[in-house]
Amino acid sequence: MHVDELETPSVLIDLDRMEHNIARMQVFCNERGLAFRPHIKTHKIPAIARLQLEAGAVGIACQKVSEAEVFSSAGINDIQIPYNIVGARKTARLADLALYNRVTVSADHPTVVAGLADAARANDISIRVLIELATDIQRAGAALDDVVALAKKIDADPNLHFAGLLLYPSNPVMRPVLQEAIERLSRAGIGVDVVSGGGTGAARHAHELPELTELRVGTYVFNDWATVCKGWTALDDCAMAVMATVVSRPTTDRAILDSGSKTLASETVDGLYGFILEYPDARIYKLNEEHGYVDLSACDDRPVIGDRVHVIPVHTCVVTNLHDRLYGVRNGEIEVSWAVAARGKVW
Amino acid sequence: MHVDELETPSVLIDLDRMEHNIARMQVFCNERGLAFRPHIKTHKIPAIARLQLEAGAVGIACQKVSEAEVFSSAGINDIQIPYNIVGARKTARLADLALYNRVTVSADHPTVVAGLADAARANDISIRVLIELATDIQRAGAALDDVVALAKKIDADPNLHFAGLLLYPSNPVMRPVLQEAIERLSRAGIGVDVVSGGGTGAARHAHELPELTELRVGTYVFNDWATVCKGWTALDDCAMAVMATVVSRPTTDRAILDSGSKTLASETVDGLYGFILEYPDARIYKLNEEHGYVDLSACDDRPVIGDRVHVIPVHTCVVTNLHDRLYGVRNGEIEVSWAVAARGKVW
Repeated sequence: MHVDELETPSVLIDLDRMEHNIARMQVFCNERGLAFRPHIKTHKIPAIARLQLEAGAVGIACQKVSEAEVFSSAGINDIQIPYNIVGARKTARLADLALYNRVTVSADHPTVVAGLADAARANDISIRVLIELATDIQRAGAALDDVVALAKKIDADPNLHFAGLLLYPSNPVMRPVLQEAIERLSRAGIGVDVVSGGGTGAARHAHELPELTELRVGTYVFNDWATVCKGWTALDDCAMAVMATVVSRPTTDRAILDSGSKTLASETVDGLYGFILEYPDARIYKLNEEHGYVDLSACDDRPVIGDRVHVIPVHTCVVTNLHDRLYGVRNGEIEVSWAVAARGKVW
Repeated sequence: MHVDELETPSVLIDLDRMEHNIARMQVFCNERGLAFRPHIKTHKIPAIARLQLEAGAVGIACQKVSEAEVFSSAGINDIQIPYNIVGARKTARLADLALYNRVTVSADHPTVVAGLADAARANDISIRVLIELATDIQRAGAALDDVVALAKKIDADPNLHFAGLLLYPSNPVMRPVLQEAIERLSRAGIGVDVVSGGGTGAARHAHELPELTELRVGTYVFNDWATVCKGWTALDDCAMAVMATVVSRPTTDRAILDSGSKTLASETVDGLYGFILEYPDARIYKLNEEHGYVDLSACDDRPVIGDRVHVIPVHTCVVTNLHDRLYGVRNGEIEVSWAVAARGKVW
């Protein structure tokens, strides 16, 4: 089926670009001796994870147990969840997954570790646990001074295995803290097998953090207007575009797209909600749920009602999560229609 | 099942509050002689639309043909789409719907009207068309000077019926334009049966726009932190809450929730992403997809890892669209689990 026959709005994936992105990131990691573990939040589709694994990835990362269940069911068995899994029902499901998959999870607090230990004990298995280090973005993560005690607690538990350290994003500024954590653990007689870093921006500086053994990146598979604006990728590296229709031209300077926040999501870069390939001087300056407001005042050519445009979205991961299907396109033909199998998995 | 047995994050609907909201808005419209047409974008669930109809609503409004198909399949037959339906495949589906449903659609341009006429002719039916007037929010909509010509074009088409005028939002500031449009149409011999207004904020001023015959409102059914902050509703009118778990307490002043932008959406009011009922002095100041950052510095009591909290989201409609299910709760028990049947319907 030709892409022109598809209704709008639809999320198109340029297969050539996606494959190029997958291959290039794998080469990047191979050249640096880094294990590569793509984060599936960007696509949420097992078939794309399989392409990443075939290219050389060691496994996947995902953020929720329910996402891990989807990928495990699709036959992907090395799964890392860089997140505190809290609550008896969730840790029980995690332990069930760990029966037949190589599951690694992170923790940043003794309470979290205790919950993991209880669930692992109930299943009579061992769960691999990374300690998440607090980083410069001040999200979750253990403070440097708490790392050794936490590692000892993990190491001492017969149902847990201390697998190493994890940080997000793995910015070079974290190196002194990371080195100190490794040094203190070493002095305590605890080896660090894995140092897992992540982040699309941080990945570009992986060589400045030679302690890393593994890289988790998601967005690279599609890229987006945010990664372009940050100078991390070229526009030609963007594999995802939202195909939209101009549904209203109420004034000379304004167009309305059939794609609002329900399609493009509400995130912005430099105040804009995306980049229109056909009208590079147009500005998507506002969204309602089903309306995209476009300022055409800087455009020489302007679209008419019914014209189709292609929007590079600001943040590809959140767009994926809004849609039931992504369409893989090559040479104008829809080569594959993927169900977004892990869409909306919040548990 | 008790709500405590549910995993987090989950979207809970307080059934008593929802029923109260439905009844109150219907009384409000009845007292003003306004037909009430709830916009289903807020819940996207046919069973809730049925409650609204049973309370006295004349029909529903939705924004996409694919949404109309879901509600028509559920036996709801009076459907208005206040949107330009553009493109031959979409207008054909609209015309198919109009075979067995009372379908009304809006248009703001001759190109849109021509597309509707072609589809109606192909099905040998008549489609009811409202003209959308441009309003102060400068979105879509016909300019005042174009209204009469557009109405004549609709009126002259054997397969279209000019049903009246539509505006969003129906703010009182629009009254002079609305009156002038009605006056000009009258002078052209064209009667205006319906004047359909909308908007949760505008609804409160419906009495200042006595030309209105109908009101379209969505958010009132659940309400949200935005309607509270705007002074439109009380906190006790908020029927939707996201039940979340504290998964990290990295510092004294910071908590991390298992609810990020994938759960709460990225919209803000006064820079905040929601209101935590249990910690009114806490501030949800940042979201990543799976992390909600909470500043506890102003809180006397503070949660520990594993505690559950309830977040009133900023914008209920966009939250609904992220989730596969909403849970209706009364007296702590889950009385109903609804599939969000029209979630993600973008076509």
